Amino acid sequence: MLVNTRRVRIEWGDCDPCGITFYPRYFDIFDASTSALIERALGMLKRDYLRAYDFGGHPLVKSHCRFLVPTRFGDDVTVETRIAQFRRSSFDVHHCLRKDEIVAVEGFETRVWVAGHAVSGRMKPVPVPQVVIERLSRA
Amino acid sequence: MLVNTRRVRIEWGDCDPCGITFYPRYFDIFDASTSALIERALGMLKRDYLRAYDFGGHPLVKSHCRFLVPTRFGDDVTVETRIAQFRRSSFDVHHCLRKDEIVAVEGFETRVWVAGHAVSGRMKPVPVPQVVIERLSRA
Amino acid sequence: MLVNTRRVRIEWGDCDPCGITFYPRYFDIFDASTSALIERALGMLKRDYLRAYDFGGHPLVKSHCRFLVPTRFGDDVTVETRIAQFRRSSFDVHHCLRKDEIVAVEGFETRVWVAGHAVSGRMKPVPVPQVVIERLSRA
Amino acid sequence: MLVNTRRVRIEWGDCDPCGITFYPRYFDIFDASTSALIERALGMLKRDYLRAYDFGGHPLVKSHCRFLVPTRFGDDVTVETRIAQFRRSSFDVHHCLRKDEIVAVEGFETRVWVAGHAVSGRMKPVPVPQVVIERLSRA
Repeated sequence: MLVNTRRVRIEWGDCDPCGITFYPRYFDIFDASTSALIERALGMLKRDYLRAYDFGGHPLVKSHCRFLVPTRFGDDVTVETRIAQFRRSSFDVHHCLRKDEIVAVEGFETRVWVAGHAVSGRMKPVPVPQVVIERLSRA
Repeated sequence: MLVNTRRVRIEWGDCDPCGITFYPRYFDIFDASTSALIERALGMLKRDYLRAYDFGGHPLVKSHCRFLVPTRFGDDVTVETRIAQFRRSSFDVHHCLRKDEIVAVEGFETRVWVAGHAVSGRMKPVPVPQVVIERLSRA
Repeated sequence: MLVNTRRVRIEWGDCDPCGITFYPRYFDIFDASTSALIERALGMLKRDYLRAYDFGGHPLVKSHCRFLVPTRFGDDVTVETRIAQFRRSSFDVHHCLRKDEIVAVEGFETRVWVAGHAVSGRMKPVPVPQVVIERLSRA
Repeated sequence: MLVNTRRVRIEWGDCDPCGITFYPRYFDIFDASTSALIERALGMLKRDYLRAYDFGGHPLVKSHCRFLVPTRFGDDVTVETRIAQFRRSSFDVHHCLRKDEIVAVEGFETRVWVAGHAVSGRMKPVPVPQVVIERLSRA
């Protein structure tokens, strides 16, 4: 599978009164990492691939996360992101966030490929396009 | 188990370009809901119970979440929070977020009761105090 | 002018490693307070008044803020919001955030009433509807 | 004055239902940009300069911001940050955020150099160290 790696600086404003990353901020990082992976696979920005594939996005249906080592402001972490599995209209994403080579946080997301628009209530799952699967599956 | 219920307004700034809640915001809501539950059980604010029990907080080690129904700005949701299980120095929290009586998001957290301070690196799990278990276990 | 008052709990996740509110969070509070004021004046939710007045929102063109007293997690603050001035297609909003009766933060926003959609690039200022001015100007 | 320039990607999660950056997110960007400027001047991370200068941080007392051009997810913006003025124990910071060479947002902050700790209530302004002034004043 295609792997995308981002380097992210943990900022002062990401941290709580204990001085460590407030855990919801990891999900901000993971969401951006999923988009970055797909952007890289398709060779276009999210705003463009939303249009190109005439679809409504890839909202989450499930997430699972393990927090192993705390990180804090000033840490430069790396996030490795890849697709773990494709199903007909959903897919699993795996994120591995490391601090100095050590796995600090691991995230798993299940997302659905949807057509239509979230607010209108007519958002519905559609098959992930074959070209998207192919490009994300490349080594 | 003691149940705490909060009513939360989904705000414009919580929502993404699809007009629905950006999922990391649910974790902000859940974190505040866990604190509110413990505050209610102990009859004191988090800043006071951190001191009273001379402890370093209750950081997450695991989270699991299911996103069933999208919510959007203007929605008033309710979040019901309770302890699902106690272990020696960790505990599971269950959050149920409803929109018009329908379960929209379900969150599960495993947290550790720690002594010491996160940043110094000497944060270590200690047994959850008996009085805390008792008060959170009340009907 | 119509005044809207909200009570807001400062949460753990709003605070920085110093234990005080990370200042961008005040702007989240103020944005929600502006919407709440207009919602109250018009008797409908933002998602409804966006449709009812067929407009594209009220983006900021200027903000000014004074931070007088730090707040921290567990504080219940009040935010008083009112329109300070109307111009043809823009208006000034004033927010006063108090902690125990003492002014902690004061915010001023200049916003524009726009038609069209931000992303298409065809967003343009239009006159604030007379009924909106009237309702927000009531004592 | 020393100028620090950062390149920042506007993310999906930074944007509101109009598809443009939710304005409080600019303040997250500016806060990180101020730290980055001081880190560069002093040649150490914020967590280290907080210790090295035995001080309590540089909280805001005032901010002023102009929003000229909307930005949206996928935009890579640059932020140029420099000190605009030093006073005895406070200083002004100027941020200029550009999108394709065009100024999109301009931010001004007044910050105080403080000793002590915010929460204890014994935080008090102290003179900005001479070495800090010198290093930030370099061309």
